[in-house]
Amino acid sequence: MEHNIVKAEIITIGDEILYGQITDTNSQWIGLELANIGILVVHKKSVGDNKKAILEGLSEAERRADLILLTGGLGPTKDDITKNALAEYFGVGMKFHEEILEHIRELFRQRNREHLLEFNRTQAYLPENAIPISNHLGTAPGMWFEKGNKVFISMPGVPHEMKKMMTDAVLPKIIEKFRPPVIYHHFIRTIGIAESQLSAQIAEWESQLPSHIKLAYLPRLGQVKLRLTATGSDKSTLQRECEILTEKLLPLIQDYVFAIGEKEIQEVIGEMLKSRGQMVAIAESCTGGYVSHLFTQNPGSSAYFKGSVVAYHNEVKQHLLGVRAETLSAYGAVSEETAREMAVGVAQKLSADFGISITGIAGPEGGTPEKPVGTVWIACVGPSGEIKTQKLTLSKDRMMNIQLSANGVLNLLRQVILSEQNKKTLSF
Amino acid sequence: MEHNIVKAEIITIGDEILYGQITDTNSQWIGLELANIGILVVHKKSVGDNKKAILEGLSEAERRADLILLTGGLGPTKDDITKNALAEYFGVGMKFHEEILEHIRELFRQRNREHLLEFNRTQAYLPENAIPISNHLGTAPGMWFEKGNKVFISMPGVPHEMKKMMTDAVLPKIIEKFRPPVIYHHFIRTIGIAESQLSAQIAEWESQLPSHIKLAYLPRLGQVKLRLTATGSDKSTLQRECEILTEKLLPLIQDYVFAIGEKEIQEVIGEMLKSRGQMVAIAESCTGGYVSHLFTQNPGSSAYFKGSVVAYHNEVKQHLLGVRAETLSAYGAVSEETAREMAVGVAQKLSADFGISITGIAGPEGGTPEKPVGTVWIACVGPSGEIKTQKLTLSKDRMMNIQLSANGVLNLLRQVILSEQNKKTLSF
Repeated sequence: MEHNIVKAEIITIGDEILYGQITDTNSQWIGLELANIGILVVHKKSVGDNKKAILEGLSEAERRADLILLTGGLGPTKDDITKNALAEYFGVGMKFHEEILEHIRELFRQRNREHLLEFNRTQAYLPENAIPISNHLGTAPGMWFEKGNKVFISMPGVPHEMKKMMTDAVLPKIIEKFRPPVIYHHFIRTIGIAESQLSAQIAEWESQLPSHIKLAYLPRLGQVKLRLTATGSDKSTLQRECEILTEKLLPLIQDYVFAIGEKEIQEVIGEMLKSRGQMVAIAESCTGGYVSHLFTQNPGSSAYFKGSVVAYHNEVKQHLLGVRAETLSAYGAVSEETAREMAVGVAQKLSADFGISITGIAGPEGGTPEKPVGTVWIACVGPSGEIKTQKLTLSKDRMMNIQLSANGVLNLLRQVILSEQNKKTLSF
Repeated sequence: MEHNIVKAEIITIGDEILYGQITDTNSQWIGLELANIGILVVHKKSVGDNKKAILEGLSEAERRADLILLTGGLGPTKDDITKNALAEYFGVGMKFHEEILEHIRELFRQRNREHLLEFNRTQAYLPENAIPISNHLGTAPGMWFEKGNKVFISMPGVPHEMKKMMTDAVLPKIIEKFRPPVIYHHFIRTIGIAESQLSAQIAEWESQLPSHIKLAYLPRLGQVKLRLTATGSDKSTLQRECEILTEKLLPLIQDYVFAIGEKEIQEVIGEMLKSRGQMVAIAESCTGGYVSHLFTQNPGSSAYFKGSVVAYHNEVKQHLLGVRAETLSAYGAVSEETAREMAVGVAQKLSADFGISITGIAGPEGGTPEKPVGTVWIACVGPSGEIKTQKLTLSKDRMMNIQLSANGVLNLLRQVILSEQNKKTLSF
């Protein structure tokens, strides 16, 4: 199969990448997306904002790769360095595209901006041999070039613009042009079990995987994503094989699996709630709005998310959530009792079916010998009045503690939803 | 001065970087460290775990750089690819180093490991022309090579091993060898002005920059960061030059500058509030907790952040924030009037000095002809009772709308804090 493999090279452009002032997340994302469609990245590089470096980068890349992807160097104040370098590289002049100028005008209208400036106009000029690629989220168009059997693609460096362009237009066009071998990825997402325990629990199943299907463990913040990567010639065959393997796997780790596929746990919970016509309300202390943000990132979250109270100060816990002063003084803000009253209070005050709460010490300051940084209490109450609580003992890192607490309370909510469902089924 | 600049190239080695499976944090860190000592990274690349790619990478690098730094490909399971490639590149054989084997033995003793394995022994063999660099945290030594005026440095890929080696031994040795010029970076952060407008407004100032100070525009989500990069021989002189230039710049864009330096806007606001002994409360609708999350990411935010209400449903706006039913029915949830009542309500209910609110249609669904997706109203009320409101007309992308709305309301809060401050000053 070696001769079939399509080789790609990624070039990111920008002085700020070389100087370490920004993290180049683009090339990692592109690498993953290309691996997904069976294209092998053989080289990846960053060059500065200057024509000589870009020209050198292009000719080196053309020698070793079939497909060359560039990001960056397209903004109005970058002097269009990338565009001019590409025109020089291909030995062509520039050509004006009326439809691109129209698109920029339209964007400006939508954003109530002033008149076009001269350097916005120059964005409508592309090298003569470029096929323009629409940029739905910004002014700089992408470009597709062909030279012999090689393809060059230039995209803007702004991550969300590049990602949308790549997903909507570039990846489909690459597949059409190169017809790479089929690689099928299948995901099983777990929460609440450590990688090593998971690995021990499925060791026998893993040892029986066929050689064309590989397993990877992708752990992140209290979750472990299992990825099966199957290589072959027919997608539906690979998909069926992965599904059969998954059916055998599930009984081994049933309690921890929250999704087959790529969905996030908050999306899965949202769908569970929506299908039952139920809503959740959230009382957050140490997570400071992060759990609410996770839910409300999802389009349509108003169908199951009622609202929340970020009760950072104790008086907010008392006045808005009805936590009793005696509870706070007897047990403290970070305690099972307070978490319990916060969950019950937010469900009542916001008339929601489920109430969840998080109260803890995110750090780096604020710990005591009895309650060190990383001590977190979470609680969840369901429509039957059942309450589950849990103590988490986390790390010293503030942002990690916020994210791990969020994962913890989402898993608790998932368990209570399932347990309420079972009660309902039993009572029939 | 051009001839004085030391040019560096960074090569990171590893298939997992190319496939996007791990984030290459090494090259960013090295880039920052080199910039700090005045060495210009002109190129940065990642190659796979194979000898041909490394050899090609070395010869390309030697053509353009004076200093070539490699990380990765040194571990015992990597078959010492990097070491063999380097020996072949320099045309030398391998040489055994007794002191390296002794260091590995010592590490094994410290970690209570079993006997040395054969591939640990091979780690004591280095190319004949290598000067070994001690690795205090691992088994693979670093290597320093000289060829003519060029220096090649090979380091392990494990980040903490590489960082310690670089800090303790490599950076001092580079400074001794190259005596590089000083590079100083100076940042001015703006909000609420587009890159193109900013650039037009400071064009004359920009045209008068001396040739050893360069300006870059780094735009992101409603903010533009300006970076001055100054090159010379004395850090405090460069710093003073940048400060004088900044003083001349500020009057041109006064209203938009929120920080000189690297601080985020929510940190700057937090410091303003803390120094005044004041607190903010937040009423969020379409941003769904994100603005609260931005504040509470910062350690110590409880000094100025009181809490917030995420009022996703209208009944929450009414019951928890006191928005009047008549306001909602007459003007709708996304209106100046509702935003105003939310801001006032949250400041009152949570007893905060400042109240801010955000209500809008984040999308992708929920738009109407009069209020399309991306319509957002924000409001801020201060202790004097002064209220500022603003309508934002944003994009079709949900996550972008959330982030841009957050930036919008943070800027509004900053303006009201400053305006309240002026009132106080005037009344004295």
